[in-house]
This record gives sequence, C-alpha cells and structure tokens, in this order.
Amino acid sequence: MPEIAYVNGKFLPLEQATVRVEDRGFQFADGVYEVLRTYGGKPFAVTEHLARLARSLGALELKAPASAEQLKSIIHEGIQRSGFAEATVYLQITRGCAPRHRGMPTGVEPTIVMTVRELGPAATSLRGDGIAVVTLPEFRWAWCDIKSIALLPSVLAYRAAKKAGADDAIFVEDDGTVNEATGANVFVVTRGRLRTPPISTRILPGVTRDKILEVARAAGIETAEERIAKSELYAAAEVFLTSTTAVVVPVVTVDGQQIGTGKPGPTSARVYEQFARMFIRP
Amino acid sequence: MPEIAYVNGKFLPLEQATVRVEDRGFQFADGVYEVLRTYGGKPFAVTEHLARLARSLGALELKAPASAEQLKSIIHEGIQRSGFAEATVYLQITRGCAPRHRGMPTGVEPTIVMTVRELGPAATSLRGDGIAVVTLPEFRWAWCDIKSIALLPSVLAYRAAKKAGADDAIFVEDDGTVNEATGANVFVVTRGRLRTPPISTRILPGVTRDKILEVARAAGIETAEERIAKSELYAAAEVFLTSTTAVVVPVVTVDGQQIGTGKPGPTSARVYEQFARMFIRP
Repeated sequence: MPEIAYVNGKFLPLEQATVRVEDRGFQFADGVYEVLRTYGGKPFAVTEHLARLARSLGALELKAPASAEQLKSIIHEGIQRSGFAEATVYLQITRGCAPRHRGMPTGVEPTIVMTVRELGPAATSLRGDGIAVVTLPEFRWAWCDIKSIALLPSVLAYRAAKKAGADDAIFVEDDGTVNEATGANVFVVTRGRLRTPPISTRILPGVTRDKILEVARAAGIETAEERIAKSELYAAAEVFLTSTTAVVVPVVTVDGQQIGTGKPGPTSARVYEQFARMFIRP
Repeated sequence: MPEIAYVNGKFLPLEQATVRVEDRGFQFADGVYEVLRTYGGKPFAVTEHLARLARSLGALELKAPASAEQLKSIIHEGIQRSGFAEATVYLQITRGCAPRHRGMPTGVEPTIVMTVRELGPAATSLRGDGIAVVTLPEFRWAWCDIKSIALLPSVLAYRAAKKAGADDAIFVEDDGTVNEATGANVFVVTRGRLRTPPISTRILPGVTRDKILEVARAAGIETAEERIAKSELYAAAEVFLTSTTAVVVPVVTVDGQQIGTGKPGPTSARVYEQFARMFIRP
C-alpha cells in the first residue's frame, strides 16, 4: 500500500509530493500543523485538532485556506484512499509561496499538505517498560502554545536526550518548573493526585492532555492543573507523557533518577485503560 | 532574465524548483541558510558567509553536503547563469528528506537549495531618510547565533513592527539590553563612540557587523562591543542597523521617540562611505 500525500487539492503518492522552494514553510517555518491518528479507521478528536489548528493559524494571521468541514473531508478521503486499517494523518498549512522576504506577503494562497502513514493497531492496555527522560533548561521561543513548524529546538532537544542515553527531554522553565517534553505533555502522580502544568504560552494545549484529564476524572482520580517543580518530578510516585500517537508513555527515570518503583505505575495503566474504554473500544 | 534556482546539483528556473514535502526543512525548520550579495557581479565576503554556514551546520550536527570550495563554485555558477549585473544569493541547507519524526535520521543526504535574484546596483553613499523601529521583548529561542530557518519569530516580530507603523523591530532581552533587529545587527553612536552588542548566543554574528566595525576603525572611529540598554537607544546620537543586503540603515525613531536630530546622522554616512571605499569600489 503506497503512502499518500495531498498537496493543494491533489492526492498523489508521498514520494512524488513536493512544494516550491520559496514556500514560506521551507524558508521561514511560516506554518502550523496537526498530527491525528485513527481508532478503528476513524480519525480521533478531529474537531479538537481542527479547532487547535484554527487557533494556530489565527496566531500567525494566516487565513484558513479551507473550512473545518472541508479539512475534515480531506482527512477522511486521505484515510480512505490510503486503505490502512489504522493511520496517522499529518496536516500542515503554510503561508504559501512568495519571493523571499520576512514580511508577510499579501494575496498569496496558503499551502495545504497532508500525508497519511500506516499505524499499528491501538493497544487496549498500557504497553512497554517505560522510558528514560532528561530535563533540559527551556530554550524554545516564548509561544509554545502555537503548534508551529519551527520545530528545530525540539529536534535538538530530542537529540540531546538521545546523546544522554535517554528517550526524550523535558523542558524546565527558568523558575525551575516543568513545561513539557519535545512532543508530549507531562503528567505527574503525587500522593494519589494526577497533576499536569496548566495551559499557558509555555506548553502546547495537548488534545490528548485534555482527554487524559477527562478520563482520569471519569476513573475517580483527583486531577490538578498546576506548575510542577523539577524536584517534584524526581519525587513523584509516577511520571508519564501524553501525546496523540502514543497516548500514555510511562517515564521510569528522570535525569537517571528512578521514579517510584522504577516500573510503569498503576495510575498510568488506569488512565490508559479508561481512555481505551471511552475512546478506543467504546 | 529568469530567476534561477539550484536544487541538489541541478540548475533550473526558480518557479520549477521544488523539494519533497518530507524535506525536514519544510516540516521541522531543520536547516540553516546564508544570504550573500554581489558587488560588481562578485559575491561579497563569500568566505565569511561560508564559514558561518559551517558553524551553523555544526550546531545542528548537520554534515556539510559539499566543501566550501564546492559551495563557492555553485554560488559563482549561479551568479553567472543568472546574468544579473548585481544579485542576491540565497543558500539553504536542510537535513534532507526522511519519514517524519523529530529524531535526526541517519544515512540521509542533506538538501542544498540556492536561489539567485536580481539586485539594484550598490549605492556608494548612504541613501534614504532612515527608518522607524519599535522595540519588542525578546521572544525567540536561546540560540540566535545559529542562522537557522526557524524564522517564524522574526516574521511575527516584523509583522508587529509594521502593525505599529514602523519598519522593523529590535528585540530587547529580559535584562533591558538590546539584542538585534529581525534581520540586522544594531549599532548605536554615543558621545562619538560606535557601539554594538558583543557576539553571544543572543545575536547573529553578522558578516556586515564585523565589516562595519572594521571600516569604522579604519575611519578613525572609536568602537566598542558591549551590551546596550534600551534607554541608551533612545538617548543615542545615532542608531543604525547593518545587514548584508542593505549594509547600513539609519534609524530615526525608536518606539516613536526621535533619535538625535531625527535625520540620518554623520557617523552612519561616514561608515557607509568607508565601507564603499574599502569594499564596493576598492
């Protein structure tokens, strides 16, 4: 089954999909994106993803090139054409193509690119042995709530984590509190409470983050959105990351220090099971 | 005369030049760039630009896909093929094309893109009435000394300047000192001394910045590389910006406050004339 792409109204094989070199996505990172995944072949939380996309576009003063309904229909068609049982959908919108200048051009059509990739079937219980993370001083820009394609800092942070023998990095603000990982939100279990940093300009408002708060409450777990000190990470009973593709990923060491028992904890399993009950096999 | 591009070994008309949608320059801003200009048809300070490019590539752990000599030869060929009397050369190198993941792929060939555009003849004396700038709190990432294509913050800052009725924005660090403009270094004349912020991670080490320091000293002007408070901008006798394409651009208002006499000052004219003597018509 070939991987497919969509570029400005046209579906084509992924390896044939191109954009012009003066696309502002290529020269200025002047664009935004979303990653969606399917459960049972249906895109999950598509309304929430498209609402966030609209917010990101607004922050860049980028006029949506298609309505949410049109984008939904493109996403559905892409999934259908791909023929994959489960897929990830990558959707990127840039300011389009214009002679290179940092000023925003007028009268330019935005570029829409979508790719569809195969994904394994969704697990219905929490997998894996957990991952190791390191903390890094925050070095990204001020507006991490915008899901922009200016992702170089996350690429470099992820690389730093790998070089340190870890699987991901968590950014720590100057004041010593936790922001997020390079592509995931952070959750901490402290004395039975499930905590995650509040929505701010320092983190991406994760679609899965919201769903996890929702399923945790449904499972009777006390939740709190509050700033978390780095020292509280080390002392936590459990730490886990949340993201669209992996959903819940337990963290078993932070900066080489063992978290809790050093194994994925019961709360992460409980929220994942509740997530599966509510969203994967409802 | 058609504008031309070079993509991975091939010259072609600019409007036909494309990259794949999974080029990491398009999806992650995972790349670096340089902008050069010609004087008398010859690229200016090409060695300095390529040295900076090598440093930027190193910061991204991106292996240079061609030697400095090969890149020079590509630049020269591009200028020659373009046939323009004077040109700007835009050179971008990205990590290449790989299935989307923030981890650095291995075994991937970097992408080289170059575009050549026509430029008017170089002025030999300082032009213009000067520009208006506004200051903005710094909101870019920590490593502004890397000339990366993650330029969205500069696009948004430039846009904020335009919306405020100004021509450019100067980023001001949390401590109240000046970093740089959205695409230019900042110089200030205070009691006859020409001052500019020192090289650090907060500014791009401008090729023209260095040349201006050099020509100023040659013209007998006292220079200093030191942090400059925002309040010193307002109080300066002169403020000007330096960049490859525009060389020296006098600033006549900052945040609506008149600088000096409100007209381009004698020092900016003197350094530009010395620059022209030494580099434009030597």
